[in-house]
Amino acid sequence: MATPSNQNVEFVRTGYRKNAVKVLHIRREVIHHHITELIADIQLTLKTHKDYLTGDNSDIIPTDTIKNTVHALAKLKGIKTIEGFAMDICEHFLTAFNHVTRVRVNIDEVPWKRLEKNGVEHTHASIHCPEAWQFCEVEQHLSMTPVVHNGIKDIKVLKTTLSGFESLYGTIFTTLTDAKDRFFCTSVYARWKTVKDTIIQKFAGPYDQVLVLDRIPQVTQTDFNFGYNSLDNPPGNITGTVCRKPRAKM
Amino acid sequence: MATPSNQNVEFVRTGYRKNAVKVLHIRREVIHHHITELIADIQLTLKTHKDYLTGDNSDIIPTDTIKNTVHALAKLKGIKTIEGFAMDICEHFLTAFNHVTRVRVNIDEVPWKRLEKNGVEHTHASIHCPEAWQFCEVEQHLSMTPVVHNGIKDIKVLKTTLSGFESLYGTIFTTLTDAKDRFFCTSVYARWKTVKDTIIQKFAGPYDQVLVLDRIPQVTQTDFNFGYNSLDNPPGNITGTVCRKPRAKM
Amino acid sequence: MATPSNQNVEFVRTGYRKNAVKVLHIRREVIHHHITELIADIQLTLKTHKDYLTGDNSDIIPTDTIKNTVHALAKLKGIKTIEGFAMDICEHFLTAFNHVTRVRVNIDEVPWKRLEKNGVEHTHASIHCPEAWQFCEVEQHLSMTPVVHNGIKDIKVLKTTLSGFESLYGTIFTTLTDAKDRFFCTSVYARWKTVKDTIIQKFAGPYDQVLVLDRIPQVTQTDFNFGYNSLDNPPGNITGTVCRKPRAKM
Amino acid sequence: MATPSNQNVEFVRTGYRKNAVKVLHIRREVIHHHITELIADIQLTLKTHKDYLTGDNSDIIPTDTIKNTVHALAKLKGIKTIEGFAMDICEHFLTAFNHVTRVRVNIDEVPWKRLEKNGVEHTHASIHCPEAWQFCEVEQHLSMTPVVHNGIKDIKVLKTTLSGFESLYGTIFTTLTDAKDRFFCTSVYARWKTVKDTIIQKFAGPYDQVLVLDRIPQVTQTDFNFGYNSLDNPPGNITGTVCRKPRAKM
Repeated sequence: MATPSNQNVEFVRTGYRKNAVKVLHIRREVIHHHITELIADIQLTLKTHKDYLTGDNSDIIPTDTIKNTVHALAKLKGIKTIEGFAMDICEHFLTAFNHVTRVRVNIDEVPWKRLEKNGVEHTHASIHCPEAWQFCEVEQHLSMTPVVHNGIKDIKVLKTTLSGFESLYGTIFTTLTDAKDRFFCTSVYARWKTVKDTIIQKFAGPYDQVLVLDRIPQVTQTDFNFGYNSLDNPPGNITGTVCRKPRAKM
Repeated sequence: MATPSNQNVEFVRTGYRKNAVKVLHIRREVIHHHITELIADIQLTLKTHKDYLTGDNSDIIPTDTIKNTVHALAKLKGIKTIEGFAMDICEHFLTAFNHVTRVRVNIDEVPWKRLEKNGVEHTHASIHCPEAWQFCEVEQHLSMTPVVHNGIKDIKVLKTTLSGFESLYGTIFTTLTDAKDRFFCTSVYARWKTVKDTIIQKFAGPYDQVLVLDRIPQVTQTDFNFGYNSLDNPPGNITGTVCRKPRAKM
Repeated sequence: MATPSNQNVEFVRTGYRKNAVKVLHIRREVIHHHITELIADIQLTLKTHKDYLTGDNSDIIPTDTIKNTVHALAKLKGIKTIEGFAMDICEHFLTAFNHVTRVRVNIDEVPWKRLEKNGVEHTHASIHCPEAWQFCEVEQHLSMTPVVHNGIKDIKVLKTTLSGFESLYGTIFTTLTDAKDRFFCTSVYARWKTVKDTIIQKFAGPYDQVLVLDRIPQVTQTDFNFGYNSLDNPPGNITGTVCRKPRAKM
Repeated sequence: MATPSNQNVEFVRTGYRKNAVKVLHIRREVIHHHITELIADIQLTLKTHKDYLTGDNSDIIPTDTIKNTVHALAKLKGIKTIEGFAMDICEHFLTAFNHVTRVRVNIDEVPWKRLEKNGVEHTHASIHCPEAWQFCEVEQHLSMTPVVHNGIKDIKVLKTTLSGFESLYGTIFTTLTDAKDRFFCTSVYARWKTVKDTIIQKFAGPYDQVLVLDRIPQVTQTDFNFGYNSLDNPPGNITGTVCRKPRAKM
């Protein structure tokens, strides 16, 4: 490992990260089985840098232990929502270790859909249906409340009319001509910042991201990203962040 | 496109991004040809949000025009270093348009190596040799100087001894046993923040990242990341940032 | 290009292939729009090898022309089924050129699903829904009938019970223990050989591949492949081919 | 698992396959360590189909056992060449089990290069250098000699002159214009069929594939594939097979 060769240089931030911890949680009721599959990234920041500075490993929490802990927490606490499980992970590392100062957890939920036939749901079989991925990001510092973002991503939609692209800014390097009507294909990413994570779950997704801010007081900020692909060219992206206007003072 | 449904919500940031613009630049000297292949992402921030708010497209610089502009600049200005070319792109968009307020350019240089045989270099043929990727990130706001990061990534190295991992913090979920000696495989990422980009080019890479700070006054900060892969398990990562200590005042 | 250096060596097979030709076909009816997106690989075999042997390019059909031809045929003939379109492509190259002796076309159909709300179908918008991919492979030699395979792939299903794996063949290297019940996750690939391609379209997919042979006289052979993934280990595969038994003679 | 519903259908081929078994073999000499990393796919065909037909698992060799066996053989036999190791795997499964009738092994060797500085080789450290991948395919039926193919793949080369593409066959769909000179980028795949695998190792690779046939009597057939990528379009491929001419009889 690199160690500073003299006293002019210092570490300002260090971390341990375990990527792609996979969990399949099965809850077996009398008739139906319920599954949640997720992929979690966990990042820990420690109080000291002595592992980097002197090779003293006594503070290191091996990423193998991080993985085992995530599996154990899934068993002990269950998984009702990925946001709740991410908060359970943060709380565990901040309380079980007295030298962890910050935990960041990113979880993607694998999209499974219960099989059904003629309106009857299968008791224990699901099909992978990646129309959209739910995700969350939870970050918590020691003695602070967790900051929760969640959202929806990788939704690909296409429409074959009602998408014009006219009157653009032209330059000497412009070759794109105006199109009164064209097909439009986009991949949607939307991320919300919320005070209470459970609220968001009720909302359907990307069509409503402005409504979210407008109607729900607990949501404070929304990022979105429309990536568009014409069939043969590299992609472009349109991105934005909307937030609530500060209220005028009386 | 989503538009705010009333006056309580506002856009705080919007952007247009063109990903993965590919450029192959060939400089033909009398005997030897010199090539630079690169992949560039360009992100523009505009002064107004009227495209998002009212559907007025007159300020939009289509990502197709962004791509054409990058190709034209490569022809007009040449490509000596990817950092210099990224700064050329920033400068062009900030001066040629009076409604662009910020440009961010990420460039990866494709690793080509001139063929040689018995010490003689081929005049015009190269082989793709992805031992390491050079990259840079340049961000510039209107009327400001560009901020330049560059670095080296995707270097995979492996050693078969002299890597111990002992005396770790143990928990009830620990299964990893101490290893006096083991093989160790890592993928290296190192990113420097520099004042003059051209300096960094002289350094070989990840082994010297602390030396960089120690010896070269223009380099102000270094990020690094060691991702390690045992052969059959998901990866973990060790990350850090080192910076120069503030000098004591006299 | 490599050329044989003397007379002891001969070319036995050569070919030109265009991979990943993307087509989006839109059929606009008065109210509804219908889309078919597909990805086609086309491989041509020519009568002579003079391009390889003497550098004479006069027989070469550039892959760029192959791509343009596929786009033109989509416009001229339309796309009702991917099997029919693949046969149109074979027929075109075998009749429009007198030096093409064999055409092979592989088509994957991109899975789009019309949006609907409260049972009402959207007139012109679709969502990408990759629960399963339909594909076909058509090969035709000059003056022969086309050979058509088609099938369904990349279906991921998971069940949480009723999957045992017991009484296996044990060796000194066996570590897997018997499991009375376990969860089981598999990715399904099934390929049919058919006389008339249109018949297969009526079948729902992987559960019925034996029924296909059993009930439908035109289907002559079925390949299948179950790839299974436990959550953290590299995958294994179970493969097989079933075909109709030769009828006993009277 | 699908089972035939009546007596009209039969299994003609079944198999078990273990994909992507990773092996890192370290041979420690007094001073230098030598590593071979490889990725192996193993496919077994059994004598009966009773596992498919009646659910009788007693013949199944779990893919987990296949993986363990590969690891054990690497330890017991060592790995001098990937071809030799693939033949060791085939021989083991055909002799240790009396119900295995065919084994097919595909091995890719991960390209590692010993670090060196000023001409001195490092004793135990290597860098991943994927300029080219060596691979082999060995297939053996019970009581038969193994059939060995090997080759080299994923070599990307680019030249900036001396590549014309003129006088092509033109059609109404042709848009590509003749190019007297152009840059040309290709990815090379070459596969040899050989009697004694060890011979091929002496040859440098794709430039000599015809020479191979011409000069070395044990090599009987060569496949090659040039995939070319212009920078922004989907790829095309030129493929061929050369073999030795039958000798004229005296």
